[in-house]
This record gives sequence, C-alpha cells and structure tokens, in this order.
Amino acid sequence: MSLLQPVHNIAEICARHGITDVVLSPGSRSAPLTIAFARHPGLRVRVVPDERAAAFIALGIAQAQRRAVALVCTSGTAGLNYAPAVAEAYFQHVPLVLFTADRPPEWIDQLDGQTIRQTDLYGGHAKGAFEFPADLSHPDARWHAARLVSEAINLAEQFPAGPVQVNVPLREPFYPSAGEEIRYDDVRIFRETGSSPQLLPAELNALRQQLRETRRALVVAGQHPADESLLLALRQLASAYQIPVVGDLIANVHLPVGPDYDIRTAPLGRQDVFMAVPEVGLKEAMRPELLITFGQSLISKALKNYLREYGPKQHWHVQPAGPVADTFKSLTRVIRMEPAAFFEAMQGTTIPEAAEPVTNAKASKQAPKTQLRLTWQGPGSARDEAAAPKDAFTTPWQRAEGWATEFLADFLKTPEQPFNEFTATHRALRQVPNRAALHLANSMAVRYANILGVQPGRAIEVFANRGTSGIDGCNSTAVGAALAQPERPVVLLTGDVAFFYDRNGFWHNYPTPNLRVILLNNHAGGIFRLIEGPRQQPELEEFFETRQQLTAENTARDFNLRYFRARTFAELDTVLPAFFAPANRGNAALLEITTDSATNAAFFEQYRAAVRTSFSS
Amino acid sequence: MSLLQPVHNIAEICARHGITDVVLSPGSRSAPLTIAFARHPGLRVRVVPDERAAAFIALGIAQAQRRAVALVCTSGTAGLNYAPAVAEAYFQHVPLVLFTADRPPEWIDQLDGQTIRQTDLYGGHAKGAFEFPADLSHPDARWHAARLVSEAINLAEQFPAGPVQVNVPLREPFYPSAGEEIRYDDVRIFRETGSSPQLLPAELNALRQQLRETRRALVVAGQHPADESLLLALRQLASAYQIPVVGDLIANVHLPVGPDYDIRTAPLGRQDVFMAVPEVGLKEAMRPELLITFGQSLISKALKNYLREYGPKQHWHVQPAGPVADTFKSLTRVIRMEPAAFFEAMQGTTIPEAAEPVTNAKASKQAPKTQLRLTWQGPGSARDEAAAPKDAFTTPWQRAEGWATEFLADFLKTPEQPFNEFTATHRALRQVPNRAALHLANSMAVRYANILGVQPGRAIEVFANRGTSGIDGCNSTAVGAALAQPERPVVLLTGDVAFFYDRNGFWHNYPTPNLRVILLNNHAGGIFRLIEGPRQQPELEEFFETRQQLTAENTARDFNLRYFRARTFAELDTVLPAFFAPANRGNAALLEITTDSATNAAFFEQYRAAVRTSFSS
Repeated sequence: MSLLQPVHNIAEICARHGITDVVLSPGSRSAPLTIAFARHPGLRVRVVPDERAAAFIALGIAQAQRRAVALVCTSGTAGLNYAPAVAEAYFQHVPLVLFTADRPPEWIDQLDGQTIRQTDLYGGHAKGAFEFPADLSHPDARWHAARLVSEAINLAEQFPAGPVQVNVPLREPFYPSAGEEIRYDDVRIFRETGSSPQLLPAELNALRQQLRETRRALVVAGQHPADESLLLALRQLASAYQIPVVGDLIANVHLPVGPDYDIRTAPLGRQDVFMAVPEVGLKEAMRPELLITFGQSLISKALKNYLREYGPKQHWHVQPAGPVADTFKSLTRVIRMEPAAFFEAMQGTTIPEAAEPVTNAKASKQAPKTQLRLTWQGPGSARDEAAAPKDAFTTPWQRAEGWATEFLADFLKTPEQPFNEFTATHRALRQVPNRAALHLANSMAVRYANILGVQPGRAIEVFANRGTSGIDGCNSTAVGAALAQPERPVVLLTGDVAFFYDRNGFWHNYPTPNLRVILLNNHAGGIFRLIEGPRQQPELEEFFETRQQLTAENTARDFNLRYFRARTFAELDTVLPAFFAPANRGNAALLEITTDSATNAAFFEQYRAAVRTSFSS
Repeated sequence: MSLLQPVHNIAEICARHGITDVVLSPGSRSAPLTIAFARHPGLRVRVVPDERAAAFIALGIAQAQRRAVALVCTSGTAGLNYAPAVAEAYFQHVPLVLFTADRPPEWIDQLDGQTIRQTDLYGGHAKGAFEFPADLSHPDARWHAARLVSEAINLAEQFPAGPVQVNVPLREPFYPSAGEEIRYDDVRIFRETGSSPQLLPAELNALRQQLRETRRALVVAGQHPADESLLLALRQLASAYQIPVVGDLIANVHLPVGPDYDIRTAPLGRQDVFMAVPEVGLKEAMRPELLITFGQSLISKALKNYLREYGPKQHWHVQPAGPVADTFKSLTRVIRMEPAAFFEAMQGTTIPEAAEPVTNAKASKQAPKTQLRLTWQGPGSARDEAAAPKDAFTTPWQRAEGWATEFLADFLKTPEQPFNEFTATHRALRQVPNRAALHLANSMAVRYANILGVQPGRAIEVFANRGTSGIDGCNSTAVGAALAQPERPVVLLTGDVAFFYDRNGFWHNYPTPNLRVILLNNHAGGIFRLIEGPRQQPELEEFFETRQQLTAENTARDFNLRYFRARTFAELDTVLPAFFAPANRGNAALLEITTDSATNAAFFEQYRAAVRTSFSS
C-alpha cells in the first residue's frame, strides 16, 4: 500500500461527506493532495494562484451551495494568505475545510524553504485545527487520519458553521511515479445528523405568554441566508401579533414568500432612511418593549444606534448555538432554537406540558436549511397587515417605511443633479435581474444599497462579507458565487478600492459569463469624504481617501472582462440593458461608473439634509 | 489633555527610537494613529492601500535601513493581510512594529463591523504582542502605554530582530475637531544598548585549538545582510587557516572587501553547479571534518544535500541569540557570539585566561551592524589563497569552483540555443549596475540567479525573502527597498506568478525611478516543469503550472511603469542598456522577458545533463 494512501483518501472522505467543490493553489509540498483531489471523479477542482483570492472564492462557492468547500494550499505563507477569508468565514458562519500542506514536524524551524509554524495557524478565527499524522505506517495512525477528516468536516458544517484547518505534514517522495494510478479506499466516514435544540413546553408557553402580553414587540433580522420556512414563519408571526419586522438587505427578509406575495406585508427595510430622521416623537412611538432578534450583523448604523438609545425592556436573541452578541446593549434572554421553529412555536396554542417537546424538521447544520425556491410550493399565508387596528405597534413603523419609500423616490428624481454614484447606484440596482444573487462590497457599496433597497418581489438574494466587513475579498466572493451557480445572474456592486485590492479574484482560468460587476470608481476611498471625522482633517486626501488614478480598463483587458463605462446618466441608461443582457459564453461584464469623489460627497450631503428636514409627522 | 494624547505620543516614541519610516493603510478606526504619524515632522509616512503589499514594502524599507519600520492599519482583516510579511520578517530577522487599530475589548464579538480577535494576531510568527491600554485616564495607564511602545520597539530590534505587534484599542471619538492641532509630549523612552555575548577565554582557546588541529574546516554562510567587518574577519580567517568559505548569493559573502580586493580569494559561490556533479571522488575530497556556519537559510539544495550526506564530524553554528536550526543534521555546538567577533577571535593568539573576555564593538541589535560602504576605509588584508600548499583543503573546493565558472561560461555560449530564460537571466544579470541592491523573487528567479551568480567585485548586494520563501511579497519588498534608497539602483528579478500575485505592490502614489523589474514571463508556474515529480504527472499543466496568458503590459499601463520587452536574444541585448539607464524621474522600468515554458525546461535539462557529464577530474 502506498504510504500516501491515507492522504489520497482525504479526497474520498470529502466526497462522501457531500463536498463537491475544491479550490486549490499550486504548490509542490501539496502535490499528494492536489493529485488526490484532481483525480477524484466526484470533485470539481479549480486552481487559483493567489491564496487570498482562492479562499474568498471558496467562501463564495460555500455561501451559494450551503455546504463546505475544501481548500488546498502548499506549505509556508500560502496558508497565511487564507487568513482574511478564514476570519470572514468564521464570523459569517460559512463552512470551509482548509487542507494546508506542511513539512513534517521534525523539519519545522530548520531553515528549509516554505516552512512556517502551521499548527493552529488561524488561532481564534478557526472553529478547530487538526493535525494529520505525519507517520502513517501504524494502523492506528491511519484510523486517526481518516477519523480526523470526518471530524473536521462535521465541525465545519455544524451550526454555527465555520472554517476548520487540517494541517497535513508530508514527507518526500510525494509524487506518484509516471503513469502510476492512485486509488481511493472504501473508507468509513461518520456524518453528524443535524439536530435542533428544543425548549420544554413550559418554557415555550411562558415565552408565548410574554409575547401575547406585549403590545410593542419588534423583530430585527441580522444577516441571514434566504430561508423559505423562516420567512414564512416570520410573516405569520408578524401578522398574528402585529409585530413589525425590520431587516437590512443582507437579512434577506425582503424576499417574496409564496404566490400570493403581498408587498404591503413585507418586512421593513428603509431603516437607514427613517431612522436618520431627528423626530423624537416618531422614535418614541416606535420604541419596542420586546425586541426579538436572530441572525448575524446589521448594516444599518442608524438602526443600531436607535436601538441602543431607545432600548427595549426585553431583548430575546434566537440562535440555536454558538456565541451571542449583545449588539444593542439590551440582551435579556438567549433562546436556543432555530429561528423558524421558534417563530412557528410562538404562534401555536398553549402546549400541554406532558406532550413531546415541540420539534421541527430543520437541522441545526447549515446545509439542510431550506433554500429559497424559485417556484413556491407551500400554502400562501401572508396576511394583510394594513388591516391592523389603527393603534397597532406596526402603525408607526409602517408609516415611517412608507414615508421613506416615497421620500427616496422623490429625492432620486432631484432635477439637474450632477452625475453621482448614489443615484447611479439606484438606477443600476433597478435593473438587476430577477432572482439574481446580489453581492455588495464593503465600504460605500453596501451602505448605498442598503439605503436604496432592491425592488420588492423580485427575489434578489443579497450577500456581503459582513462577518468582518473587509474589502479584501469582495471580487473573489462574487466570482465564487458565479462559479457555483452558472445559471444564475450574480451581480457585484463594488467601489474602486475594494475592486483593485482584490483584482486577483479574476486571475484564474474559469470564465464567469453570469457575473456582472458594477464598479463605482471615484478614484479614492470615497467613504472617508462621507464621514464627518476625516472630512475635516488636512490629511483627508493623502492619508484617508488615498486618491488613485486607476481605471478598470486595463484590468478588464487582462481578464477578458466585457467592459462598459458610464460617465453620465445618459451613458448609464444606455449601457445598462446591454450590460445586464444574459451571456452564456465569455467572461464577466464590468461596468465602470466613473464619478467625482467631491461631487458624490456633496450630493450625498444633500440627501442627508433632505432626510433631516423632509419628514413631517 | 486629550484622551488620545498617549496615542499621539506613539509617533513621538517611534521617532525618538530612531524610526524614520511608517507605512500605513487607510482606515477610520486607525485615524488617531494616522493623524499622529502623518503630522509628526520626523517621520516619513507612506500610504499603501493593500495591507499585504504594505507590510512587504515596510519589510523592504527595514531591510534597506536596518532599523525598524512602523506599520499602521485599521481594525478587522486589515491586520491579517499583514500576516505573510510578518512571518517572512520573523524568519528573516527584519524588525517591524505593527500598530493594529482595534475596537475596545468590550466591543469584540458584538457583530460590529471590522472587528475580529486581534490580540496576539500573529501567534508564533511575531516576537511579541502588546496590548495598548483602552482606558488612558489613569496615570498608570499612560505610563503603561508609553512603556510598552518602547518595549515593543526594543524587542523588534533586539537580535534576532523581528516583527512585534502593538494592538491599539480605540474608542470614539477619534478625530480631532476641524483645525485642532495635536501635540507630542516630551515623552520618556528607554532604549536597549546593544551587547554582544562573549565566551570565556578558556572556551575560546579550546575552540581555537580545535580549529588549528583540523585540516578540513569549511565555513558555510547562510542568508546574511552585507557586513564589512564580518567579511573582513572571514577573509582573514579563511586565509590564515586555508578554510574554504562557501555562500549563496543571499549570504552576501561575494561582496568585495577593501581596495586590494582580489577575486581569487573571494568565497566560493558555484555550489549549485559543482555540487550537482556526480563525482564521488570529488565529494570525498571536499568533505569537511569541521563545518562552521552562520546566518540563516541556504538556497542551494545541492549543497544542503551534500552536507547532509557527507556530514562533518563537528558542526559549529555561530549565532549570538535565538533558535538555531540543525540544517545539516550534523550540529554539535552552538556558539553564542557575533560571527565577526568569533572569526576574529579564532585568528588571535591564545588568550591569557585571566584577561578580560574578548569583546567586539558590534552590538547584538541589528541596527548598528556595519553596512557595506561604497568607499572602503580599512586596511587591505586579503591574502592570496592560490598560494596555499597543494594539499590544502581549499584546493578541491577552489578547483570545483574554477571548473564550474568555466563550465558555465562555456555552456551559456551554446550555439543556436532557443530563447530561454536561463540564458536571458544570465545576460540581464551581467548588466545589473554596480552597487545595486538585487532582489530575487522566490521560485525560479532566485534559483537561476544563484546558479549564474553576479560578477565578482561589483558590489551587488543580494536580497530575497528566504525566511519563508513565499512568492507573495516579492514586488513589494523591492518597491520598499527602492523607496528607502532612492539614490541606489534596485533590481528585482522575478517570475510571472510572483509578479502578478503581488501586483498591488505598485498600487500607491510613490514613484520609484530607481527600480528595475526583470520579469521572466513563461505564462505559468514554470518551476513545476523543472522539477521531476510534477513534470511526470498528467496534472502538470492544469494543476501545477496553471498556465495563464497575462502579459505585464496592462500592469505597466496601470502603474506608469516604463515598459520594455524581449522575445529574442537580439531584442534583449538591444533593450538592456536603455532599461538599466539611470532615471531620476518617473516610475520604475519593467522588462518583460517572454519565453516558452517547455523550451525553458528543455534547455535547463540540457544544462543539467551537461553538468553531470562535463566534469573531468
């Protein structure tokens, strides 16, 4: 038996666990892994030279597939270049299994090339770190080798999902002879069956009782992948109890539910607008007694600040496992259930205490969650919240939302406005194809989009790397999404710093004809001109904005991106249809919207001033 | 007093410690650091958006200046992008002080943007990690704040130098008011006076006695910055005891010493050639009884393998402090002295045991080491080793070196050879200006250069990121070197994967007219075709070489690099003079040498075969 057989079996174990996609970066020390994965008939292996980009591409694939993606890199700093994506995956709960090839332990710190200290390379940003045995001759070592790969994959996928490192020390020789075939053993794996934590009936009854007695309950959704059952349960709860539901775009609660989808009952999403209104009366009217949250981070700083200032008496956070943040400084109860199960349970009648605990079919592993289907099968159940009693707690929230929607529509029609990225983003977003995956880069792109919203009912699912809010992998993540779903339009909205930072996300041999990149190029880190502090400093241009003259044309040439440009509203309106037109061949299309940073800042300031003065109660 | 005064003082403390250069990447959380550094009159602050590139640029500056460089980044994954350069600095002993802005501890894991777990972010790859106090109101906290910055800088510069993190949690508000001036306190610092470990006279005498009794002593130099006193001591020792000295280019022992520099007495550097000769007789004749080493890693795998196979009875490694590698599996003694002091001491007469310990003027901190001066002041002292007795241990080594030099010269004149990067590199290297800093990228560039060598006596100092041998920061490191020494030619020899990987090293607003980039573009990771294992695998092209079609023209356009191209020897010979011509303005020049990967592999195989068959004893 080849000494490397347990290494080759890693690919088989991954495949048996349901992993289908592998992203690898070339290297020599990693050759046994490369060969094992590349030759495995059940795995799609893609090669990406820059490990930083490779890991974010894997993250994009894993987000789209909702299962773990495997990564392979060689020894040395290769694995350190994974670190930004590893941290993002950790905080965004995306399962990655990172196979880092290494020299055997006796060669560490012996001045050999590409040798660093790889054990537990990601510290607090990985869910776990496993060390593959260097000596595989003893049967127990082979048992250990196979076992830990199952453990690693299970750990990565277990809620909250995240990245797991498997460090694989390899001794030479590690190439098969010319023409030698490798085989995969019929290797045993163990999966983890998803489970869902339940509350005892008495506890559920007590919570339901509290909810019934509260006239001012509010649900705020944090970042969450689209989930049909969750959306349905949430709508039903909101309707039954007259509870306003608020979510940023990345919470994906704006997605349509059912064929009888009624946008009047949709959750609210204009908080960036109406929470910026300095109306104390309105804010008092909107103040919740009970706040119920689920999911991860929020984009809307205005909403966060509001909830911190106008704190509820009770704040329940629903999350089946893992650390819980006290985001609003108001947390009073952690509820260890799946949010969908909890929202369903809150609607039922009182549960006899002798009965079986309430169960729900959804697993706590991320993979089995119900993805949003394009054709809806379930019963329609949204109710008309507009028919709520006039003093319902939904009323001020819906009124604020309604005002914000109208205000925005009016404001965006401001006559004779200069070409600016806020309005340009609005126009571009309106043409994003139905059922697209919309990826929002950090810095201003995600903020603009969260203000502007997407049109309701169009089933645009929204992604952003808000685990760490870095700009370092936004292109790559969108590329991964496009590779994983070739039949689906994937649209990336990004700024120039994020775009050029992560150019290497396009540096590989896999075309993504379904990817559309909207680049807001203001030749600077324009965000710094939009926030109060740096705008007033003499260091603004040199040390914050960091003006740069790059256009994306050369990048487009390098990577065969179909290049579109807009420097006026007229140009923008002209190119948008061609830019978004479906293509089955070639590479992505790139639309560079060129604006001036100072003009953007002035127009955005005009928008902010209008928000402050336009609201009348 | 501003609550941020201790943060502003960080810049003053750095300046008082002799730090002159700061590389910062824009961010909001880091604003107090940005403002403190940017406004300090004694510091040169450069802005580089991609933190991965920023850290390697800082490393290049620190290598050139031989003192610590400060880095500033914002919170979140920004600091993780430093990690590859941090590991390189750790293993290459380059002092960096990394100021990572952070949220205050109470906000960690609370789902706020750009918040990760930054305490001790670099684990085993930083020399230390300091946590700046979040609360600065108590006088003891301010004492602590100033103290730890001194401690961090001292630790970074203390031998073996390396990277140190200072994590700086910052609460809002962190921008001064518009027009507000900041000031720097007359803050106390404490420096560490360099010291040098000494052996007791009895121990030195014993070592000298052993050296005298050994007829077959060999010195092998690992990676080491150019050091005049060391070179002189080494030449004198070699001459006095007939000891061959062998060093790769990165050991910088090829540098000329003194006005009476005689290349016949120079250390040997053709080990990649002569050690590949399969002559057992020669190798037996070259076998050392006592091996003395200093410095860090070796490039030459042939020499490493030789020494592992033909191991000496005794192996002394001379290094004043820090972990020591047993690179050749032969280590018998660690000698805690400065190499120059040790080599000087070995030449003296027996030391009376009652005397003072032998001292030497050099400090153990990296900074004060003597850099190679362009005009030599000291006494000439090299002796003519060619006059050694015929049975001296130097004889077989010098004979092998002489043969290799002639063989290479002849081989490179092979008539009608196809255009290939091995010969092209030879021709380009011959025209590198005198006194240039030559940076060698990892993968094939550093290997080719180590085979081909640089012409003796031309004072070309050689750098390579051989701490971890990564390709991830080679452009950036050379850019840093060029920024730090604007009057000196800095030449980077690199391959296409390393070049495109680290394109963002050019993405900033600081021109480097003194930088010359020689890019060997074979449109693939050509190294994989040159090593036995992957060459024989069906995965070669797709999963190892990873063919890519990029040329550097678009990159040159993006960054205003003056672009030269060579696709034939005639073109190469034509463009080289213009490419290397000095320029005081504009940006770097880039010479793209385009070759075919298969042709390169065939020609290099021809070279290898010739080495194996040409030697006659």
